[in-house]
Amino acid sequence: MPTESPISIRRARHDDVVAIVAMLADDPLGSARERLEDPLPPSYFQAFAAVDRDPNIQLVVAQDGEANVVGCLQLCILPGLSSQGASRALIEDVRVAAACRSRGIGEQMVQWAVAEARARGCRLVELLTHNTRKDAQRFYVRLGFQPSHVGMTLRF
Amino acid sequence: MPTESPISIRRARHDDVVAIVAMLADDPLGSARERLEDPLPPSYFQAFAAVDRDPNIQLVVAQDGEANVVGCLQLCILPGLSSQGASRALIEDVRVAAACRSRGIGEQMVQWAVAEARARGCRLVELLTHNTRKDAQRFYVRLGFQPSHVGMTLRF
Repeated sequence: MPTESPISIRRARHDDVVAIVAMLADDPLGSARERLEDPLPPSYFQAFAAVDRDPNIQLVVAQDGEANVVGCLQLCILPGLSSQGASRALIEDVRVAAACRSRGIGEQMVQWAVAEARARGCRLVELLTHNTRKDAQRFYVRLGFQPSHVGMTLRF
Repeated sequence: MPTESPISIRRARHDDVVAIVAMLADDPLGSARERLEDPLPPSYFQAFAAVDRDPNIQLVVAQDGEANVVGCLQLCILPGLSSQGASRALIEDVRVAAACRSRGIGEQMVQWAVAEARARGCRLVELLTHNTRKDAQRFYVRLGFQPSHVGMTLRF
């Protein structure tokens, strides 16, 4: 198996929603939160529509040479006053299909997001990764991120 | 001095920008990042305009009984597929004017943001607080937040 897969990154479409939810659910934390049913609950498609029409949000997928969706990532560009009015980028929901890990797909997606954030004038990219995801933390440090903050969450 | 100040929380206006930037700059981390000049660099006002027209972002200020701006907070409501398509809320740039701390102003602002996030259908509120801000971490834990994540940042 090659260490790098040739992938392309493109904007997610309505017909990618099932594949994205499957990746979100295929995870110890995600499996408790998602409902991977056939058909999917309509709330997922409503959320996709809200994401798709928001000019500050880009939900993208990675696809392999056979057009299979093998990863996803959501990038939000957030205007704000701090840092002299520079926008901030937030990366959320980074997932790589279980069968396709350790091939550099996550790295290519995150590097895409960082480049996009720069191109849109951000001076900061931020993300939260669960305390238990030690591999993810090492991955982000390798890409230049610092574990500089505590990510606080309140879940209803 | 009372432990709770009667404050009101309202949407920030163009003429609040100087007071907000002053609070962002009045801080060991912020002072290195901001340019509190007279007049302020136009980038702050451009950022305010971008925030003000974004329906998913609410920049609010707390004002005291004499209409002085004594705090600020930015709330972003972010649609996304995870958690069955529930939106997520991100709180940023929480500040209380130095002379007005320890009066419950930060708590009232954050509780406002949490209530607003709930009202807009979010199931999760998240924020990053710098590792060195131990007081802030205790403050958020007291309000029900969990230090569940590592906040990773990449600054250009």
